Amino acid sequence: MSQQLTVYVAKSSPFSHRVAIALEMAKAPHTRHEIDLKNKPEWFTSKVNPTGQCPALTYGGPVVPADQPSPESVKLRESLVLVEFIADLYPAAGILPADPVLRAKARLFIDAITQTFSGASHAAIRALMHAGGDPEPLLAALERLQALLPPTGFAIGEFSAADIAIAPQIIRSELSFEHNLIGPSGSQDGQRILALMREPRLARWAEYRKAIQAHPAVRSTFDEEYVLESLKARAVAMRAQGSA
Amino acid sequence: MSQQLTVYVAKSSPFSHRVAIALEMAKAPHTRHEIDLKNKPEWFTSKVNPTGQCPALTYGGPVVPADQPSPESVKLRESLVLVEFIADLYPAAGILPADPVLRAKARLFIDAITQTFSGASHAAIRALMHAGGDPEPLLAALERLQALLPPTGFAIGEFSAADIAIAPQIIRSELSFEHNLIGPSGSQDGQRILALMREPRLARWAEYRKAIQAHPAVRSTFDEEYVLESLKARAVAMRAQGSA
Ligand SMILES: N[C@@H](CCC(=O)N[C@@H](CS)C(=O)NCC(=O)O)C(=O)O
Ligand SMILES: N[C@@H](CCC(=O)N[C@@H](CS)C(=O)NCC(=O)O)C(=O)O
Repeated sequence: MSQQLTVYVAKSSPFSHRVAIALEMAKAPHTRHEIDLKNKPEWFTSKVNPTGQCPALTYGGPVVPADQPSPESVKLRESLVLVEFIADLYPAAGILPADPVLRAKARLFIDAITQTFSGASHAAIRALMHAGGDPEPLLAALERLQALLPPTGFAIGEFSAADIAIAPQIIRSELSFEHNLIGPSGSQDGQRILALMREPRLARWAEYRKAIQAHPAVRSTFDEEYVLESLKARAVAMRAQGSA
Repeated sequence: MSQQLTVYVAKSSPFSHRVAIALEMAKAPHTRHEIDLKNKPEWFTSKVNPTGQCPALTYGGPVVPADQPSPESVKLRESLVLVEFIADLYPAAGILPADPVLRAKARLFIDAITQTFSGASHAAIRALMHAGGDPEPLLAALERLQALLPPTGFAIGEFSAADIAIAPQIIRSELSFEHNLIGPSGSQDGQRILALMREPRLARWAEYRKAIQAHPAVRSTFDEEYVLESLKARAVAMRAQGSA
């Protein structure tokens, strides 16, 4: 008999989206509880995740209302740990294949993603996403990830945890660019970057982005309207700050 | 029939040591090839690991001399990916247990280790290990890791990948401290830190350190004499630089 599984997520959160995709691939029965990150309930930090971050989950223990977590359930966090956890619970879901070599390749791709979005490389990309400016650090980082892709298909062939790790970023940044939500008010930086991302240099990446955006488990777990609104609100706030 | 496995390691490298411990736990037949990191052979970067780092491995393909890697073998790298790979190849070795919850707990501990030894926290610890000085950032980081330990035993109870991830750092820093190999020449910083690490604040951590250092798979894969010599040489070089 399978144990209770309650996930705490925020629709706007790319890290939460990873877990939602894994759950969708596994068709895992679960309770989903949305956390308002701007107004976090006290019980979430004290009873579910001491870091206060989404995603987090409880597993096992008695069936209780999501906002009254039991001390008897296991508490887990960190999106990539949670994706592996769901893969372990549902080995047939294909989140990670059974072959050790393919599993290692998926984890290497995930490691490259984590390195891309941390440290100095991340600081430059983050600055771009906020203030606009030189897109070269982003394009160079994408080129490095592109070099890890096989000639066709997803990161290790079939859609897997490797793609889950990057899909939320891809689908969100696409929206930001399309709607020119980066840089100062009135900036066309977003569309300009999209054009650069269509150049031959990133041809394989462009194909990959498309495949990611079209994947059913990515799409069905993404509330585009909601995320677009929250990206717009963030851009407005940033631009107000920038011009203050 | 099992495939050929060749690992490229450097005795002094804590990341390589992780892989050596996992191989030892699995009793995995393999060829071990030492890489001289100060004088890296050209073929290593061009044919095994484009990042030029140890550890790396080749898996499968024809049996060839380690210094003539075949294009037909799979090439893998990143110590934590390699530990999971060996765990996947040898599921009965106990590197990761079968229970998804314990696996997730091991990965959470590993994530905490990775976060401790990266970013700002790492910069402060690294500065301490080189130049000596305020040990508080290190003690605070160890206290945070200590909080993740169960009341007794290893990180998730039995010795696992979680402990493999930190053991090489523990056993090396212990040597550095014992022999006062941090800070300026003549400094007693090492012994001073060891004394602080014996205080009640880190009592559980002290017990854990001891258990790690005594573990057969950690000990038998550690060339203490060699590593001590290389830590001494590093200290001499650092101190010469510092006083230049
Ligand atoms: N490393 C974590 C990061 C999670 C994270 O940063 N979550 C954000 C939302 S995208 C959050 O909860 N922020 C609210 C907060 O930190 O208070 C993971 O991968 O799960
Ligand atoms: N993230 C890598 C780090 C490996 C690493 O930094 N290896 C060092 C030895 S401890 C190395 O090979 N340095 C030589 C170089 O970078 O040229 C891992 O976990 O395997």
